[in-house]
Amino acid sequence: MIHTHKKLSLCPDLETAQTHGVHEECGVFGIYDTDGGDVASSVYYGLCSLQHRGQESCGIAVTDTSGASGNIRFHKDLGLVQEVFKAETIGGLHGNLGVGHVRYSTTGATTRENAQPLVLNYIKGTLALAHNGNLVNANELKKELVYGGAIFQTTTDSEMIAYYIARERVHTKSVEEALLKTAKKIRGAYGLVVMSPRKLMALRDPWGLKPLCLGKRENSYIVTSESCALHAVGAEFIRDIEPGELVTIHQDGTITSDKSLQQEQRAHCIFEYIYFARLDSVIDGIKVYDARIRAGHALAKAYPAEADIVTGVPESGLTAARGYAQCAGIPFEIAFYKNSYIGRTFIKPTQKERVSGVKLKLNVLEPVVRGKRIVLVDDSIVRGTTMANLIQMLKKAGAKEVHVRISAPPFLYPCYYGTDVPSNEQLIASSHTVEEIRQIIGADSLGYMKIEDLQTMVGKLGICKACFDNHYPIKNEEIQ
Amino acid sequence: MIHTHKKLSLCPDLETAQTHGVHEECGVFGIYDTDGGDVASSVYYGLCSLQHRGQESCGIAVTDTSGASGNIRFHKDLGLVQEVFKAETIGGLHGNLGVGHVRYSTTGATTRENAQPLVLNYIKGTLALAHNGNLVNANELKKELVYGGAIFQTTTDSEMIAYYIARERVHTKSVEEALLKTAKKIRGAYGLVVMSPRKLMALRDPWGLKPLCLGKRENSYIVTSESCALHAVGAEFIRDIEPGELVTIHQDGTITSDKSLQQEQRAHCIFEYIYFARLDSVIDGIKVYDARIRAGHALAKAYPAEADIVTGVPESGLTAARGYAQCAGIPFEIAFYKNSYIGRTFIKPTQKERVSGVKLKLNVLEPVVRGKRIVLVDDSIVRGTTMANLIQMLKKAGAKEVHVRISAPPFLYPCYYGTDVPSNEQLIASSHTVEEIRQIIGADSLGYMKIEDLQTMVGKLGICKACFDNHYPIKNEEIQ
Amino acid sequence: MIHTHKKLSLCPDLETAQTHGVHEECGVFGIYDTDGGDVASSVYYGLCSLQHRGQESCGIAVTDTSGASGNIRFHKDLGLVQEVFKAETIGGLHGNLGVGHVRYSTTGATTRENAQPLVLNYIKGTLALAHNGNLVNANELKKELVYGGAIFQTTTDSEMIAYYIARERVHTKSVEEALLKTAKKIRGAYGLVVMSPRKLMALRDPWGLKPLCLGKRENSYIVTSESCALHAVGAEFIRDIEPGELVTIHQDGTITSDKSLQQEQRAHCIFEYIYFARLDSVIDGIKVYDARIRAGHALAKAYPAEADIVTGVPESGLTAARGYAQCAGIPFEIAFYKNSYIGRTFIKPTQKERVSGVKLKLNVLEPVVRGKRIVLVDDSIVRGTTMANLIQMLKKAGAKEVHVRISAPPFLYPCYYGTDVPSNEQLIASSHTVEEIRQIIGADSLGYMKIEDLQTMVGKLGICKACFDNHYPIKNEEIQ
Amino acid sequence: MIHTHKKLSLCPDLETAQTHGVHEECGVFGIYDTDGGDVASSVYYGLCSLQHRGQESCGIAVTDTSGASGNIRFHKDLGLVQEVFKAETIGGLHGNLGVGHVRYSTTGATTRENAQPLVLNYIKGTLALAHNGNLVNANELKKELVYGGAIFQTTTDSEMIAYYIARERVHTKSVEEALLKTAKKIRGAYGLVVMSPRKLMALRDPWGLKPLCLGKRENSYIVTSESCALHAVGAEFIRDIEPGELVTIHQDGTITSDKSLQQEQRAHCIFEYIYFARLDSVIDGIKVYDARIRAGHALAKAYPAEADIVTGVPESGLTAARGYAQCAGIPFEIAFYKNSYIGRTFIKPTQKERVSGVKLKLNVLEPVVRGKRIVLVDDSIVRGTTMANLIQMLKKAGAKEVHVRISAPPFLYPCYYGTDVPSNEQLIASSHTVEEIRQIIGADSLGYMKIEDLQTMVGKLGICKACFDNHYPIKNEEIQ
Repeated sequence: MIHTHKKLSLCPDLETAQTHGVHEECGVFGIYDTDGGDVASSVYYGLCSLQHRGQESCGIAVTDTSGASGNIRFHKDLGLVQEVFKAETIGGLHGNLGVGHVRYSTTGATTRENAQPLVLNYIKGTLALAHNGNLVNANELKKELVYGGAIFQTTTDSEMIAYYIARERVHTKSVEEALLKTAKKIRGAYGLVVMSPRKLMALRDPWGLKPLCLGKRENSYIVTSESCALHAVGAEFIRDIEPGELVTIHQDGTITSDKSLQQEQRAHCIFEYIYFARLDSVIDGIKVYDARIRAGHALAKAYPAEADIVTGVPESGLTAARGYAQCAGIPFEIAFYKNSYIGRTFIKPTQKERVSGVKLKLNVLEPVVRGKRIVLVDDSIVRGTTMANLIQMLKKAGAKEVHVRISAPPFLYPCYYGTDVPSNEQLIASSHTVEEIRQIIGADSLGYMKIEDLQTMVGKLGICKACFDNHYPIKNEEIQ
Repeated sequence: MIHTHKKLSLCPDLETAQTHGVHEECGVFGIYDTDGGDVASSVYYGLCSLQHRGQESCGIAVTDTSGASGNIRFHKDLGLVQEVFKAETIGGLHGNLGVGHVRYSTTGATTRENAQPLVLNYIKGTLALAHNGNLVNANELKKELVYGGAIFQTTTDSEMIAYYIARERVHTKSVEEALLKTAKKIRGAYGLVVMSPRKLMALRDPWGLKPLCLGKRENSYIVTSESCALHAVGAEFIRDIEPGELVTIHQDGTITSDKSLQQEQRAHCIFEYIYFARLDSVIDGIKVYDARIRAGHALAKAYPAEADIVTGVPESGLTAARGYAQCAGIPFEIAFYKNSYIGRTFIKPTQKERVSGVKLKLNVLEPVVRGKRIVLVDDSIVRGTTMANLIQMLKKAGAKEVHVRISAPPFLYPCYYGTDVPSNEQLIASSHTVEEIRQIIGADSLGYMKIEDLQTMVGKLGICKACFDNHYPIKNEEIQ
Repeated sequence: MIHTHKKLSLCPDLETAQTHGVHEECGVFGIYDTDGGDVASSVYYGLCSLQHRGQESCGIAVTDTSGASGNIRFHKDLGLVQEVFKAETIGGLHGNLGVGHVRYSTTGATTRENAQPLVLNYIKGTLALAHNGNLVNANELKKELVYGGAIFQTTTDSEMIAYYIARERVHTKSVEEALLKTAKKIRGAYGLVVMSPRKLMALRDPWGLKPLCLGKRENSYIVTSESCALHAVGAEFIRDIEPGELVTIHQDGTITSDKSLQQEQRAHCIFEYIYFARLDSVIDGIKVYDARIRAGHALAKAYPAEADIVTGVPESGLTAARGYAQCAGIPFEIAFYKNSYIGRTFIKPTQKERVSGVKLKLNVLEPVVRGKRIVLVDDSIVRGTTMANLIQMLKKAGAKEVHVRISAPPFLYPCYYGTDVPSNEQLIASSHTVEEIRQIIGADSLGYMKIEDLQTMVGKLGICKACFDNHYPIKNEEIQ
Repeated sequence: MIHTHKKLSLCPDLETAQTHGVHEECGVFGIYDTDGGDVASSVYYGLCSLQHRGQESCGIAVTDTSGASGNIRFHKDLGLVQEVFKAETIGGLHGNLGVGHVRYSTTGATTRENAQPLVLNYIKGTLALAHNGNLVNANELKKELVYGGAIFQTTTDSEMIAYYIARERVHTKSVEEALLKTAKKIRGAYGLVVMSPRKLMALRDPWGLKPLCLGKRENSYIVTSESCALHAVGAEFIRDIEPGELVTIHQDGTITSDKSLQQEQRAHCIFEYIYFARLDSVIDGIKVYDARIRAGHALAKAYPAEADIVTGVPESGLTAARGYAQCAGIPFEIAFYKNSYIGRTFIKPTQKERVSGVKLKLNVLEPVVRGKRIVLVDDSIVRGTTMANLIQMLKKAGAKEVHVRISAPPFLYPCYYGTDVPSNEQLIASSHTVEEIRQIIGADSLGYMKIEDLQTMVGKLGICKACFDNHYPIKNEEIQ
């Protein structure tokens, strides 16, 4: 009831949807209890542990594979997982096969209609899809579909994927086959989890842009975006789903894998390691924690500073700060108190209030910083106002110097694969030099991670760093 | 927040949806302010006056025809119009062209997903549909669509109509043309209101099963299910939309009409006059009030009674009672107090409470009935328990005799056109003779309207009375 | 969540509360199941049937008389009974002795804090009070209490009554004795229900201004404002509580009565019969229905009219209209359709909407009125705008003449006993002659019930009609 | 809507309330803008920064000192500050003088009725009180009051304080004088903020058990429990209110102080420093951060460990861990990821789920702990299950040894001053030796802060550590 204004939804026309794109970041989770137990609560806990991947909407769909009906029970809405799902709702979602989704998108498309999983009827009964990522040939695909008479009730790429699966399923022998044929049509980033009346399928894009992994708990099998969701439900990590691989879990617990899709050069999204993934996840063999520590090392080598302490902006800047401190041999300290009660429904102060929103969320621990020269690490500078505020607060509390280190290069190019990069007008880096930014935020020095150092975070893993260097792994995409 | 259990939705598989059908009763409303003013509040008031046609879910979709975008803003949810829409929501729905819908359906498909208007993107941009009625060739249509690769996100016939419009639009020059081609494919009952970026269209089924009329307020044009909705928004009634007619309202205020569809024998639903339509509406030239008065006359002639007063079960039985009283020359009285505070969220008493739900809702006015021989008129007997309760209450309050008259014949056959007729197991009339029913409910005499008298309610108007006599106006329908 | 603005409460200072008074109309209900069964659901159904006496807030308090604790469980809030109470809440209110309250008050004091029953701890444990009425020596009482150091957390007279009970209880042997001593201090109108850990008490003011009656269902005893609440819970009416009588129901089912309070001249509120009480209630031996029929008779005799039909404004005007019709020998008709879906949360139309709120709620049944000369009966005219609207609607629908008859004299004097009479500025009658009002509302003739005819409504019953004739039954009251 | 079950409130009888006590922890905030600006939003931000002191209910009361009325507008309810207050509510709370409160209590008394501030009318008009603390002579005071005829509508000590103020005010010249007289009657811990129509008063108990400080922002003056609330609203800290001091802020901006109350030996609650106060607050001249760092030093000296890293349980254990690390010369690390999305409405896993609630909230950062000997610091062990879980998680992630250090002695004695100490049955320390606890939780070693080391946290400040050593600063209290 509180969020009525959000329920007011905008359904942009075809052109609008294509132009603005649907820059979403999401998390997916699928589980199949081959012993027949209910899985909704496991999906719930899995989604809670993926909440950092999307706080706008969420949903769970389940089916009971022992029945003949293939009926799907589902619930989805705008809000956090623990806002949307109550004990009664979870209790009513009976079924031993389920998929879930958490979603984030740009403001314009914050609609309940776009919440996932997408649940549908088609030629072979029911289907539920949960998708993380963005297609780059969406315009082309949509054009083909609408010329065939398709109608779209959401503005998500997932609906297009569903259409292709349905079309292909008419002529193929299995839903897996239809999925593979669909995969040959769609180009872009996807971690896709699909539930049919008897099977749970997981398909990862051939570049590996989006993460997807497989786990197991007794006779339950799980596919999800990040390994942290496996731990949350007490499951063991089995392995990453490979780029271009389709994994199918069958009713008897058999797991089949199809790697027949054309191989592409690996291009794992570096942004997952820099910021997006959870600190305790392991993606494609690389621990996120280690990657961030190494980012700190790289920063320390590239931009040393004469300082008394190293600290980070909570929470995301702390690990790179720890790495910087290690490498530089300077003590690591926690210098801010974070008020964890300030949530989404907090009334933001207006200018008139003479109160800073940043200060209500973060306050400086004066005994830590008084008289100190400080290295302050964060993962990005967007507008620069928050950073300027923090530096001012530190100096007011007695800090002698503040040296800012950013554990990523400046975002300069759009991401077409599903990461919501702020637009150029919002990004201070798009119109100012590093020295200008330093002056604006009031730092004593400022250093951004060098593009050439990004690789050090993840060893030999093939990465996509297009948002920093304009080298897009998927060629000839329509958007460019 | 209150209705969480309803949000838990069931998406039945294809077979289930076909078998059970989607027996819905609904109301539609469309308005085009060609002067450019906002219309959302008018749709709101229109839907409030159509609320009797569906209390399960409702929705409003609007567009601004002066813009280039064709963007549609909409909001829909489970609940009554005044529960779903608050002042802020209405205030945010800017646009001078809008459609709205109220919906009722059988329990199984009470889902938020099925709420209308259906809003979609297709080859020519955006479209919103609001549909009252039911198709009889839905299975056949759905089969054709799914074999073409269609996916269904709702279990409504409206989605099928939308698909056909989209398919036809690929090859036609205008949305009107696509609508007409669609009309040739679909068979069944429909009052359909469609909103494209620049036009408002209304299409009525060739049998005239569902009502649809046209009105005007200054430079605003309105199409809606019942004339009462015109009065609610201060508009004048222009005329009924004819069976098989497509009316289009254009941006410059021009109204065009297309009657090229094949004419069928008129079969206006008699149930609209008996119970469903609002007492102050006029449908196809017949005043609902007059029709019910005439039903009373017919009852009085067919089943006279020696009585002191005539009364009706509030609200729906009162007008036929008035007609009976007129014809029989017996005084008409209001004999029940109705507690209007008992609404949807009322906690129904269990057996244990020793309280009757009927009695909480209706109480006898003892001074009216004591010592009297009473004619009690209602429009139907379903299970018989409510009527038995009322008769018992009347007798306990001192009534000497209670003669029950029902202003409709017994429902004996299913309606395939969108009226939710209770199933046979629920209907006392399907397994008992009139005399048995009289004994069960404890009446001193009982008379049902004769099938042959139904026509007297509406003069020479062609009617559908298939639920009473098994003569269905649409031939060869797949369901039979 | 919906009514946030109402939760914002005003706690006026002492002077303000005294000056404006707390003009409340309320309903009370108390029940004692001496067999030990839970009573909360019975209180719920009782309050539902008293909802017409107050729609602003409500509450239920229960205790378990078998326990030693005297603990009271309660819940109260702003809203209708079915909004405030859900099945879980009722289910959690265990106890075989309970009291409930529905409340209406002027806007200024619409606060959750003022919701009743008032639940408190005092020298002898716990107490819950529910009070209908208004004291006239409230200022004097409050002065005495605050000089003794009292604090007030509500702006209700009930809190003062509670203080006096508590004070007297220190020196008396029983709570009944304390109640009687309190009754000697307080002057005004009250129907008071009090629950102590083991007893249920009901006290009625010595003038009989407020109604109170006693009923029985098996081994449960009930005290409540109106007999309709007895029927709602399946109980039998035993008798009215007499003016000045204290009735106590004990744990063993014994009922004791104390009539030791000084007798005063009876002054039953005539407004209960005119409008306030429910049509199916019997108060002090007079059936409300009969009283209203007789009001119609009196009107017909005083103001005959040449007319074709008689009708009333639903719901409250219908019964007097029936009486008028009977007496005048003119047919009685229902001439308006009332939209029962228009409730409290309805968005009222602004001037800009070109829609009338009255018309959304009530629409004329044109076949009833066209070409007719009409007598239209209602129970009051406040501002005159609604009546003017209705007359305009009738004439637009073809009525030839509209003769308005009002089943009460004009309100001209304030009520100090708990009935919320609109202020003079709001009342058209306070500044206009009957002829002026007739012209303003556009009626062809207008007649108000004569003060001298009021008595005919209730036979020989002593009545208070001070709001019409300025003769207040309680002398020397401080307010005058 | 969410918390219906909490709204069901229990009003225990006198004995129950006295026996169980009302063990509450709270935060208070008062502000007076002598320039006349609205203060509600400042109270809101102040309460947000005090939310750690109480998450059960909250409230704000304001008055406009320029008016003659002294009217108080207020809103309070169960829930977090940002749940209870929305922009409209704050916007409607006009007034330049306001008080606010956040509250925590034991489950039994979780009632909306007990929410503060307490707002009341008394002999001199209106009053609002917000109280942090607990009285030890509550029984005696209540007995005196009820024998004088008092009634209690809450189960809070604050209502008793209000009664005494009201009583004294009858015979005194000012509300300050009444407050001082009240202070001579009440014994216990209190940080009390009182708002009269023109004044803001703050009174601190003579032992200084509860914190209270004074701040200033332009011409606004603020009194609050902790200095962090001053920073939140952009105010400067002026000074602590002294134990036994009454500070009054007048309409003209004058601040008066009265220290006439009998001085007692200072006994500042050590628990504020150990856990309760916010890390960035300064109380009685001691920085909370410094106190916790020194606790870590003391632990390191008392219980050294051969270890590779030192870490703390987030958030409260981190600072003492930092202190331990500093003193021991071992690196400080953050070893857990904390899921900040897990809030109050989270559905807790049942045993059946095979998922641990601790693990959903906290996950080990495996790269930090693998192969390491770890010192793990927290501020308390209650049941021991959480700590056992964490140790198991650490070991499963590869930790070689886990040495637990607790930055407080074991709680062994009840707190009568308003801190909610778990009952003996819940406390593992009350029935086990340290060695037994070590075995139960699976630690390699375990050390609790020594009672004699507590003083090192706060220098020469007089402290109350009765919950650890059974030496209560207030003598002869009735409870013992």
